[in-house]
Amino acid sequence: MTDWSIADHTFMSRAVQIAWQGLYTTEPNPRVGCVLVRDGVQIAEGYHRKAGEGHAEVNALRHAGEQAKGCSAYVTLEPCSHHGKTPPCADALIAAGVAEVVVGMVDPNPQVSGRGIAKLEQAGIKVRCGLMETQCRALNPGFIKRMATGMPYVRLKMAASLDGRTAMASGESKWITGPLARQDVQRLRARSSAVISGVGSIISDNASLNVREAELGLENAAEVAARQPLRVVLDSSGRMPERAKLLSLPGRTLIVSCVDAPGFIAACDSVEWLKLPGKQGGIDLHALLKTLVARDCNEILVETGATLAGAFIAAGLVDELVIYQAMKLLGSNALPMFLLPLDRMSEQKKLTLIDSRILGDDLRLTLIPGLES
Amino acid sequence: MTDWSIADHTFMSRAVQIAWQGLYTTEPNPRVGCVLVRDGVQIAEGYHRKAGEGHAEVNALRHAGEQAKGCSAYVTLEPCSHHGKTPPCADALIAAGVAEVVVGMVDPNPQVSGRGIAKLEQAGIKVRCGLMETQCRALNPGFIKRMATGMPYVRLKMAASLDGRTAMASGESKWITGPLARQDVQRLRARSSAVISGVGSIISDNASLNVREAELGLENAAEVAARQPLRVVLDSSGRMPERAKLLSLPGRTLIVSCVDAPGFIAACDSVEWLKLPGKQGGIDLHALLKTLVARDCNEILVETGATLAGAFIAAGLVDELVIYQAMKLLGSNALPMFLLPLDRMSEQKKLTLIDSRILGDDLRLTLIPGLES
Repeated sequence: MTDWSIADHTFMSRAVQIAWQGLYTTEPNPRVGCVLVRDGVQIAEGYHRKAGEGHAEVNALRHAGEQAKGCSAYVTLEPCSHHGKTPPCADALIAAGVAEVVVGMVDPNPQVSGRGIAKLEQAGIKVRCGLMETQCRALNPGFIKRMATGMPYVRLKMAASLDGRTAMASGESKWITGPLARQDVQRLRARSSAVISGVGSIISDNASLNVREAELGLENAAEVAARQPLRVVLDSSGRMPERAKLLSLPGRTLIVSCVDAPGFIAACDSVEWLKLPGKQGGIDLHALLKTLVARDCNEILVETGATLAGAFIAAGLVDELVIYQAMKLLGSNALPMFLLPLDRMSEQKKLTLIDSRILGDDLRLTLIPGLES
Repeated sequence: MTDWSIADHTFMSRAVQIAWQGLYTTEPNPRVGCVLVRDGVQIAEGYHRKAGEGHAEVNALRHAGEQAKGCSAYVTLEPCSHHGKTPPCADALIAAGVAEVVVGMVDPNPQVSGRGIAKLEQAGIKVRCGLMETQCRALNPGFIKRMATGMPYVRLKMAASLDGRTAMASGESKWITGPLARQDVQRLRARSSAVISGVGSIISDNASLNVREAELGLENAAEVAARQPLRVVLDSSGRMPERAKLLSLPGRTLIVSCVDAPGFIAACDSVEWLKLPGKQGGIDLHALLKTLVARDCNEILVETGATLAGAFIAAGLVDELVIYQAMKLLGSNALPMFLLPLDRMSEQKKLTLIDSRILGDDLRLTLIPGLES
């Protein structure tokens, strides 16, 4: 158990804060922040902005220059010890003559976890670990889950009325929620590695599943929209319409099916058709997620109708549920949120509310599965 | 337009605050508070506690004694000018020699509205009116609506899962929400003049519809539970079971039906059987509410299943919706909140959220119909 000072918390807080600036752009890398401190005063800071560009530590060290010698570095994530697209951050910290490194959380990859810290210690640097770990972990739910378990972090989003309906029986659903809720969905897409939908929404709504610069309401919207999440369409029986809008939008589309691709797909440059073995008439969702992890996907956003959403819930594959609840009733003929056949109270799916806030006229509830004790 | 001082607000705030102490006990009278002020200092206060006992002004004057001469009285509701169970408060204020009366809101009964004020003014007392009217009105939604429109204030309560379900298909529903939400329902009952339910809940759950001292969590629980709201059971075809628990509980039960009473009813002392003309196979809800107003009912709590709840919504008879939302999914086979057949988005029932709060693991949403601009 380490004793942390108020100063420790102040500097790590700042490191967490600046790490969030990479929320929409670091993918598939983690969001990381670093603050350099000398004699109790912050002398430099840096965060990871984009894969291929400098890591947080390197950016901070560059700002500090010669000043870095003998300073303390606060980093939200254990400095890397391996050569990726950039040299190891542990080496950079050693070379800069840093005296101490305070780490928010160890590397979530069990294969390399602790190696960065060991390297620093071997070089005579004092290392303290675990400061504000909860806040540091919250930066990277997807990266952490992928590294630790080989599965992505699945966020299921649903817009529904107070009586739990997502569309009229006819399919009419525009609009259940207001503009602020829809903007928030754009931001959920923007932070995701991939967005999963069913071919049904493509057929009925010609859904784009893309991030739209004008709808993000972010200062760096242009840069954010320049990276589009992978669009994943589940189309087990090959019903994708040739004229679907999303086939020609910037960014890549992955169509997952149990059958062979129709002819027109070959002409679509940015579209990949993946045949996966079916399972009970549908696509094996576990295999699908494994496929996405193999493509370095961290956070996955599921935006589907009741059938697929219910299947994700029933399979226990959802890590987080985001419900945009509109203050209205759509009535008992309207479509349910989840096609989820349960018969007894004991089968209920319990959730824990971790955040609720008002977005315009709507309420956004964020929940995680299971009961928190 | 009157200019109100900070002192004015301070004293009326206190009057509103103490008026709330009568929340569960004044029925069928309104909740009223009164503060007496002399030279900028509060000298006495009083609130109406129980029908038949002293009104707020009289209680405050009694505490003030001789001091009342020349003081200012802050009252949440226009002082009455008529002889009811007690003499008119306007007369009492005049007799005490009060110099000024500040009134939160005029009497909501158009027949007598303004008469109390006129009486005070004729006696040479300065009257100012409309201070903190919103807060004063919030004390008595039922009394105000009954006096102003001849209809009661209908509050519809529903406990549901996040996916908008109130019970499994089998009817199993214990418990959707937690103990704090259930305590809150007890308090809703306790503030109501009547609780309406369908005979279905009596048949399936042997529902009591009563206020239970031990479950209120209130300091004055014994006094509160001593007054039971009228239990109203809608039983159009006369299916009330002879052994129903609520027939023998303290307090009165009103069974509203389209058919004649079965024989066993005659032996139930506290039970009244009321035959109302049916409407489309069910009980005419508008006529039902008129009947309850004739019995001096102010606030009505509707605690029913999807069919009756949907009928109340469809008929536009609901003034307030209280939804206890449990953070769980009950699935698509489970029972809906409202049997409410709507086909187009344009038919949606829009609501405005006026309060949301967390009660244990549940969320309580309070809504009023329509869109607030």
